[in-house]
Amino acid sequence: MDMAMHGAAIPAGFDRRDPRAVRRAARAGRLSGPTTRMAPGHVQANIVILPREHAEEFLLFCQRNPRPCPPIAVSDPGCPHLPGLAADLDMRTDLPSYRVFHDGEMVEDRADIRDLWRGDLVTFALGCSLSFEEALGDAGLPQPYLEGDRVVPIYVSGLDCEPAGRFRSRLVVSMRHFRAADAIRAIQVTSRFPNVHDAPVHIGDGRLIGIADLAAPYHDTPPDLRDDELPLFWACGVTPQIAVAAARPPFCITHTPAHMLVTDRRNANVAMS
Amino acid sequence: MDMAMHGAAIPAGFDRRDPRAVRRAARAGRLSGPTTRMAPGHVQANIVILPREHAEEFLLFCQRNPRPCPPIAVSDPGCPHLPGLAADLDMRTDLPSYRVFHDGEMVEDRADIRDLWRGDLVTFALGCSLSFEEALGDAGLPQPYLEGDRVVPIYVSGLDCEPAGRFRSRLVVSMRHFRAADAIRAIQVTSRFPNVHDAPVHIGDGRLIGIADLAAPYHDTPPDLRDDELPLFWACGVTPQIAVAAARPPFCITHTPAHMLVTDRRNANVAMS
Repeated sequence: MDMAMHGAAIPAGFDRRDPRAVRRAARAGRLSGPTTRMAPGHVQANIVILPREHAEEFLLFCQRNPRPCPPIAVSDPGCPHLPGLAADLDMRTDLPSYRVFHDGEMVEDRADIRDLWRGDLVTFALGCSLSFEEALGDAGLPQPYLEGDRVVPIYVSGLDCEPAGRFRSRLVVSMRHFRAADAIRAIQVTSRFPNVHDAPVHIGDGRLIGIADLAAPYHDTPPDLRDDELPLFWACGVTPQIAVAAARPPFCITHTPAHMLVTDRRNANVAMS
Repeated sequence: MDMAMHGAAIPAGFDRRDPRAVRRAARAGRLSGPTTRMAPGHVQANIVILPREHAEEFLLFCQRNPRPCPPIAVSDPGCPHLPGLAADLDMRTDLPSYRVFHDGEMVEDRADIRDLWRGDLVTFALGCSLSFEEALGDAGLPQPYLEGDRVVPIYVSGLDCEPAGRFRSRLVVSMRHFRAADAIRAIQVTSRFPNVHDAPVHIGDGRLIGIADLAAPYHDTPPDLRDDELPLFWACGVTPQIAVAAARPPFCITHTPAHMLVTDRRNANVAMS
């Protein structure tokens, strides 16, 4: 009896390497945590869901700022499916956790959005640096910023995105540091991912793009930069979050940070050549 | 009479944009100067001609050090032609000026090598940064180091090439400086030219590759580096010249510096994609 109850308390197992199994677990409420390291080799996407009126302006914002906001799929209004990313995908249930905003303010995290779905909602799936980080690892580049529980440091730069209607933001950048030869290789590798933030926007002195102090990132993980390393700065998917907050749409849903949409597309297939 | 004599003293005209016309002018003795800015869009090559015994080791040196020594064509022993570079090419006559070395020491510059040709000579045509400099210009990147009579500064780095037999050298690098976004673009553009020195070998602090003072290049043109610029270092075609001098082959012929082989191949065709 004890064994059976104990067994029932453990989340039912699913194959974390299989993107379809990850989505089904989220859909069934058996996965509510981060998607980190799940479905390796497959594209994970940032999600922004907006009413049609704001979606039009946000699509323009993405078009004008493709490095921070690379849309890999955009739905028709009211359609909860993105068949280009996975045939069985249902946006109302397939994230492990959703974050709901009213007038730009966070209201709640929730497990599904079935009862919030509306006929005017447009889903944006945006490319995420997890795809090129896999390629950087495959290229043998050291990634100490991924070790343990660390997260990549991000900074709000002094560079302005090109605004579109009510959407505007400074460019937020993520920083990864390498020795020079690896930095050159990292530029080459990430240049192959125009839909995943592309090549860096900056290399070297952060002050030249308005970052006063590398030791004070937007989140609280100061980088461990060595004297013989160069900082490289990539456009970051936090940028659209800030742009959405600035636009204060009456209603908006995103993924909860780190609780991404896991797709069937392969990282190798969003890369050039 | 005066007019006619004056007319005769002017080198007969030829179309400097046409690679075949440039070679024919060199062949006929009507061109003895540098090939700089001639035949735009076409590959110009560094030339090393060695007796077969040394050529075998030099080919191995090139294979092991493709960034400084990218062979775009290598002849059969005794054959003065490189049909892959131009159908009518004759290595005995088609450079504006040749430099002859005995036992690693320079002996003379001369207009042709018809009477020095031997059945055991192997010609190496090596890619040259002129090809990617054109692509950098086409990409709109500023190239102040090409203005006026300036030459790109080069440095003998502390990095060792991989030796092959008697051939060994430190890696010689050329330096070009850009603002960060242009530096990233320059890495992307030159990555498309694996047969023309490829991407940079280093970016940033020159001391990390053994260059103590950027203001003291190997030749006497100190760079004009601004505070918001980064130095980028590419493997340089002077490296094989030093390797040949170190090997001290009994007999060797090269081009006189800046008096290059002008080929029919287009720069765009030695680039990837």
